[in-house]
Amino acid sequence: MNYVLIDSLIKKALLEDRAYDDITTNSITSEESQAEVEVIVKEDGKICGLKVFSRVFQILGDVEIKFLKKEGEIVNKGELIAQLRGSTRVLLSGERVALNLLQRMSGIATEAYKASEILKEHGIKVMDTRKTTPGLRYLEKYSVLTGGGFNHRFDLSDMAMIKDNHILAAGSIKKAVESIRKKHPFIKKIEVEAENLEHVKEGLEAGADIIMLDNMEDELLKECVDYINGRAIIEVSGNIDIERFQRLKGLKIDYISMGKLTHSVKALDISMKNLKILKS
Amino acid sequence: MNYVLIDSLIKKALLEDRAYDDITTNSITSEESQAEVEVIVKEDGKICGLKVFSRVFQILGDVEIKFLKKEGEIVNKGELIAQLRGSTRVLLSGERVALNLLQRMSGIATEAYKASEILKEHGIKVMDTRKTTPGLRYLEKYSVLTGGGFNHRFDLSDMAMIKDNHILAAGSIKKAVESIRKKHPFIKKIEVEAENLEHVKEGLEAGADIIMLDNMEDELLKECVDYINGRAIIEVSGNIDIERFQRLKGLKIDYISMGKLTHSVKALDISMKNLKILKS
Amino acid sequence: MNYVLIDSLIKKALLEDRAYDDITTNSITSEESQAEVEVIVKEDGKICGLKVFSRVFQILGDVEIKFLKKEGEIVNKGELIAQLRGSTRVLLSGERVALNLLQRMSGIATEAYKASEILKEHGIKVMDTRKTTPGLRYLEKYSVLTGGGFNHRFDLSDMAMIKDNHILAAGSIKKAVESIRKKHPFIKKIEVEAENLEHVKEGLEAGADIIMLDNMEDELLKECVDYINGRAIIEVSGNIDIERFQRLKGLKIDYISMGKLTHSVKALDISMKNLKILKS
Amino acid sequence: MNYVLIDSLIKKALLEDRAYDDITTNSITSEESQAEVEVIVKEDGKICGLKVFSRVFQILGDVEIKFLKKEGEIVNKGELIAQLRGSTRVLLSGERVALNLLQRMSGIATEAYKASEILKEHGIKVMDTRKTTPGLRYLEKYSVLTGGGFNHRFDLSDMAMIKDNHILAAGSIKKAVESIRKKHPFIKKIEVEAENLEHVKEGLEAGADIIMLDNMEDELLKECVDYINGRAIIEVSGNIDIERFQRLKGLKIDYISMGKLTHSVKALDISMKNLKILKS
Amino acid sequence: MNYVLIDSLIKKALLEDRAYDDITTNSITSEESQAEVEVIVKEDGKICGLKVFSRVFQILGDVEIKFLKKEGEIVNKGELIAQLRGSTRVLLSGERVALNLLQRMSGIATEAYKASEILKEHGIKVMDTRKTTPGLRYLEKYSVLTGGGFNHRFDLSDMAMIKDNHILAAGSIKKAVESIRKKHPFIKKIEVEAENLEHVKEGLEAGADIIMLDNMEDELLKECVDYINGRAIIEVSGNIDIERFQRLKGLKIDYISMGKLTHSVKALDISMKNLKILKS
Amino acid sequence: MNYVLIDSLIKKALLEDRAYDDITTNSITSEESQAEVEVIVKEDGKICGLKVFSRVFQILGDVEIKFLKKEGEIVNKGELIAQLRGSTRVLLSGERVALNLLQRMSGIATEAYKASEILKEHGIKVMDTRKTTPGLRYLEKYSVLTGGGFNHRFDLSDMAMIKDNHILAAGSIKKAVESIRKKHPFIKKIEVEAENLEHVKEGLEAGADIIMLDNMEDELLKECVDYINGRAIIEVSGNIDIERFQRLKGLKIDYISMGKLTHSVKALDISMKNLKILKS
Repeated sequence: MNYVLIDSLIKKALLEDRAYDDITTNSITSEESQAEVEVIVKEDGKICGLKVFSRVFQILGDVEIKFLKKEGEIVNKGELIAQLRGSTRVLLSGERVALNLLQRMSGIATEAYKASEILKEHGIKVMDTRKTTPGLRYLEKYSVLTGGGFNHRFDLSDMAMIKDNHILAAGSIKKAVESIRKKHPFIKKIEVEAENLEHVKEGLEAGADIIMLDNMEDELLKECVDYINGRAIIEVSGNIDIERFQRLKGLKIDYISMGKLTHSVKALDISMKNLKILKS
Repeated sequence: MNYVLIDSLIKKALLEDRAYDDITTNSITSEESQAEVEVIVKEDGKICGLKVFSRVFQILGDVEIKFLKKEGEIVNKGELIAQLRGSTRVLLSGERVALNLLQRMSGIATEAYKASEILKEHGIKVMDTRKTTPGLRYLEKYSVLTGGGFNHRFDLSDMAMIKDNHILAAGSIKKAVESIRKKHPFIKKIEVEAENLEHVKEGLEAGADIIMLDNMEDELLKECVDYINGRAIIEVSGNIDIERFQRLKGLKIDYISMGKLTHSVKALDISMKNLKILKS
Repeated sequence: MNYVLIDSLIKKALLEDRAYDDITTNSITSEESQAEVEVIVKEDGKICGLKVFSRVFQILGDVEIKFLKKEGEIVNKGELIAQLRGSTRVLLSGERVALNLLQRMSGIATEAYKASEILKEHGIKVMDTRKTTPGLRYLEKYSVLTGGGFNHRFDLSDMAMIKDNHILAAGSIKKAVESIRKKHPFIKKIEVEAENLEHVKEGLEAGADIIMLDNMEDELLKECVDYINGRAIIEVSGNIDIERFQRLKGLKIDYISMGKLTHSVKALDISMKNLKILKS
Repeated sequence: MNYVLIDSLIKKALLEDRAYDDITTNSITSEESQAEVEVIVKEDGKICGLKVFSRVFQILGDVEIKFLKKEGEIVNKGELIAQLRGSTRVLLSGERVALNLLQRMSGIATEAYKASEILKEHGIKVMDTRKTTPGLRYLEKYSVLTGGGFNHRFDLSDMAMIKDNHILAAGSIKKAVESIRKKHPFIKKIEVEAENLEHVKEGLEAGADIIMLDNMEDELLKECVDYINGRAIIEVSGNIDIERFQRLKGLKIDYISMGKLTHSVKALDISMKNLKILKS
Repeated sequence: MNYVLIDSLIKKALLEDRAYDDITTNSITSEESQAEVEVIVKEDGKICGLKVFSRVFQILGDVEIKFLKKEGEIVNKGELIAQLRGSTRVLLSGERVALNLLQRMSGIATEAYKASEILKEHGIKVMDTRKTTPGLRYLEKYSVLTGGGFNHRFDLSDMAMIKDNHILAAGSIKKAVESIRKKHPFIKKIEVEAENLEHVKEGLEAGADIIMLDNMEDELLKECVDYINGRAIIEVSGNIDIERFQRLKGLKIDYISMGKLTHSVKALDISMKNLKILKS
Repeated sequence: MNYVLIDSLIKKALLEDRAYDDITTNSITSEESQAEVEVIVKEDGKICGLKVFSRVFQILGDVEIKFLKKEGEIVNKGELIAQLRGSTRVLLSGERVALNLLQRMSGIATEAYKASEILKEHGIKVMDTRKTTPGLRYLEKYSVLTGGGFNHRFDLSDMAMIKDNHILAAGSIKKAVESIRKKHPFIKKIEVEAENLEHVKEGLEAGADIIMLDNMEDELLKECVDYINGRAIIEVSGNIDIERFQRLKGLKIDYISMGKLTHSVKALDISMKNLKILKS
């Protein structure tokens, strides 16, 4: 992660929060005031976004940050994540933007971690989708990776993916695959979203690299997996929760993609506490 | 809601998704192809973000949209939200970005609605916080409003808010309030975050407009509310869930603020289905 | 003042002046040339914008700046404000952009200072308005503050303000106040612009926090102030000049707002002089 | 004037004013409300900026504008400039940004007009400088033109201009001119800023296209003009006011440049009045 | 191709050319002037970029364009490409920016076409590289496609590609492939750049999807192709010109990639001629 | 060359290449890995763009660069241009963007150098045109300068230039020159594009500063040059190649402008080679 992408994101967030005109902090503290403050996690999880967190303060001014946890480390309620030391104004005005990013990224990493752990021993990988927050896709997909998950395609150009509406538009899976192969013969993989066994058969015949079994009941799912029998990579998708993991984990599935990893994020609770004024 | 702000957000999201280079759709369909498609909601909730949704397609090309639900209307699983008609390429390439925004905004409105309904009869209002997604604050706060909630301050300059770290920085609540009043004598309100009865007393004495009772146990909370007795507006905050609403609703509280309205969003499930090619 | 906002402003100004392609300077000096130069004020006033001034040179390259005056200090004709030392190219190519900002900000601070001084002893505060230069509002309001004035609302979302056209749109002051209170019950203050005593009465009754007495003759003004009698904060506005200050200063007014502080700025005359080449 | 440049300026100004979140207007009026309103000038002057004014409303939504004055027309106190009809929200939320631009541009045009009129019959032209507001240079120079003045160089790359510090950096005017001619042999004109007769002689000898007589007393000025005697274009600059025009107008000067045309603008007083609701 | 991406590119180009301040055109023509003009190609080639060309004028104002050639059509010296009718100012001020884009895109398409035609019958496809002009990659790769070529990866994230320096960094091809597979197990293809037979063997063993034979002499190249024998897709790269095509065309190569398609573009000569004023 | 302009160009290029998400490099190397690498030129030419090249790496992270050649130095095939040392990830992810710029700029400088050398002894200067790559004009014109050429006008506002279509629009060369002189009396030079002797006569009479002899056969060209006889600067343009230089070099021409210097660039072949891992 370099700063080419995230700097502009952070600056926008600081402008959105008018961090340059924090009327509370600027009334209370002088420009010269220096302080220390601590970052404490208030529930168990996986920490993610430390570089983004520290970059917020770097952009605002000179703040020294000492991290006591590493990117991707498991953290427990009450633990100290970081100690910050620098301009009191910068510490207080940047707090919310920095925490908003850290909490969201850690929340995603935590969920990705939980799902990955369950499926890991069964050789099934957890993947994200394109159901991400507008403008934050890179950070959210990075968080899934940090949590132990994997990234599905980043955008519409990364890989071809034939979904229900594309099948309707093309006339058939076969026609859809052919059109794509003609324009993109080598570089791009092709995935076909199948809703039934016919789709699976058609997709295999057309030479799809990956078959996604979408929204299928357990029985149909099993039938499709058996039918494919290693001839394509298998992705399972659609309203999958942890309970269902139990029933799926025996199948020879390659990966399970979960939109909720990024579209229904639960922020990890993290606070900035115990400010100590070093110089007023 | 005019388009000055959201257009740049939508364009960024479309670039992020490389919607101009959708290799699947562009391989399968011609530039002249026309189609119809439906937007269907797959769980109960409150719909929010219709103008943003339609703007995505307007930015991409000419699409006619007929909405069957109004902004803020309650929707039920399986209902038809909108019918779209226009360029097949535009419909398919804009789908994900449009739905990502609509699902998130409707998810927030739905949660705000649920919380507001419970507290409404008790005269307590639900508020959001600044714990929003970087870059999306305006849309998220708009969604809270659409759901029936209210907006707390938009940013650090909107109102003065004295939190724990500010009290530490200023030395005391009194000193903090005085510094702010000196620089911002008329326009801005001042809110004091109180963690105990001492804070409440000090805040009242200093002339705070609003007292926030933060993270208090039921008993202490009640004691503080009684003490204030109408001399300031009362906000209650900190790890509040629906169960606790029952215990709070008898108190003379003005509003309850909930970070999770925006920091832990659950997207409402909405799909674009039943594409019909009108002209290939 | 941190650099999140002003850096993009300065960069735009430098691009506008094509400071990267100064054909005079680049023809005359080498990239290695080093020089010293002085900043001298050519009329009395209040200096404002030192950080912005120095940031221009920081963005262009390495320049050491020693300020001999502090932000907000009173300066007299002929005094030395700063000594700069660094790349000759940077010094010469950045001069105009840096001075344009410093002169404008100091001009505003100087005017705000003059007006504030007159009214200070009478307990009346001077405020700015939203009649600012597009793109420079933050710097202009900051300059008013530095000069000893105060800031009225920053933008249309900062506070509700019911003006003549709003009264016409709502039907009455009462209806206008009610609509606003319903949507923004706690956070935002409400100000009513009154053109006559009826407006004042209606505004008070509706519970306005602030009454602005707009464009009133002395007699009417007095009548309104007496009528309000401390029940609301009083702002006086509309074509006010220093002569009128004399007549107003006895009244129990809280603040006077002056559009001309920012819409009719007179730049303070400041020059960069006495370049000395240290290394060619 | 096409919209490539000014659209981004207007959008920034609307964002700065948070015109998308006008809490007063949005509380009072519905999205469907339609109205009429008038633009009235409150002092004599020259109107400038009509296209920019109307573009603000075009960007916000559908507003019909009928102008009763033409760009550059002389207007008198009380005259009707324009009638607007459209969305009440758009009219009220865009008012300030549109007026801020129109007032500033008309203020500049008015001053340029006044100065030009006096000097016109003597064959002397009035010019602006680079002492413009950061980000607004194009609009300010356009306003000078509309007022009857002329534009000096737009930026540091437009023409070479040898000022006092450049002479110090180059060692002499001769050396400065030679360095520039070597790098820019044909396209760019060269102007030399002279503070005394020596400078004038040196500049002429070096082959300067334009000689600027800077900050000279009347007598020295006359001597220099006589010396030049048509061998170069003559610009006069430095603390020039209308009184001095009388003494200068007999001289064979080509143009007089005035920084104050843009650095010390007095906005022309213009208001939006008489809102009439057509549909609430 | 939708306008999300190219509009910002075109606006930047128009600002760069200061098309809003064309001093020649604006002095000569009035704002109301209308004209017709023709676009004529002055050498044989393949036309590409018609939508981009017309978008330039759409952004500047209302211009009607009638194209007499289709995107990707072969054109001959002297043929009429388009007729434009609209504002004389827009036609003349937008000319250079529009032609610069059309000439470059057509130049690329023409080269891609020439190379493709030669290799087509031998079943070898021509591909571009990432050696594109900064900021124009999408348009340049689109032009290659229009000319009959194919697109290699768009950017560093589109596919994994192990080049000489990566082999040095990883220690071996095998280690490099393994590291990538571990992080990106399904979605991304992996290509290995081989400089000798050892590399080829190692790449095949490691399971590379594509082997690039880089900068090889004819003999070595043949040996490697034979060795691979259909077990991976074969790309040939490195200083390939048309003469060498003859020697390569018998080999079972899948594609040849040519950096010069985009890094050494020869613009197609196209002019705007025969302006006719319709209304002055 | 300062960084105000080029930083935004470089950042866009890095985003375009998704250099923040280089899946090959990030899979193979750790964030801590350090390396050395060399930049080697693979054909003879003139090196140009060293500051831009190094800025790419500065933006990405900490890289130490030692240049062995100076800006504008002649380089020979196989020579070492620079040694880089720093983060392996930064070196590998920034390589393509940095080389794309360096190769293009050096390619332009090389061509400008070749043409300049031939004409130099005859006192004829080589100039560029506005036929540059959208977004890169400053860098391309800088490269022409570095190569020994000169810059024609930068944009449409830099100088007035009356071309064929302008003559048609104005009615005659005389009218065109008069309109421009009226609006821009002093600062801007005027150039007239002449296609025949009549044009030349008319242009001279109208007082043009520069006459461009466009697309003329040798004989006509000679006739025109003789006719002008020093009364205006002479530019020759239109399909000029090195062979023709021989025939032109005896004429009293001031400069020759060549569109192909920038519209048909041949990149200079430069590579980054011999990576050595210092710390993995």
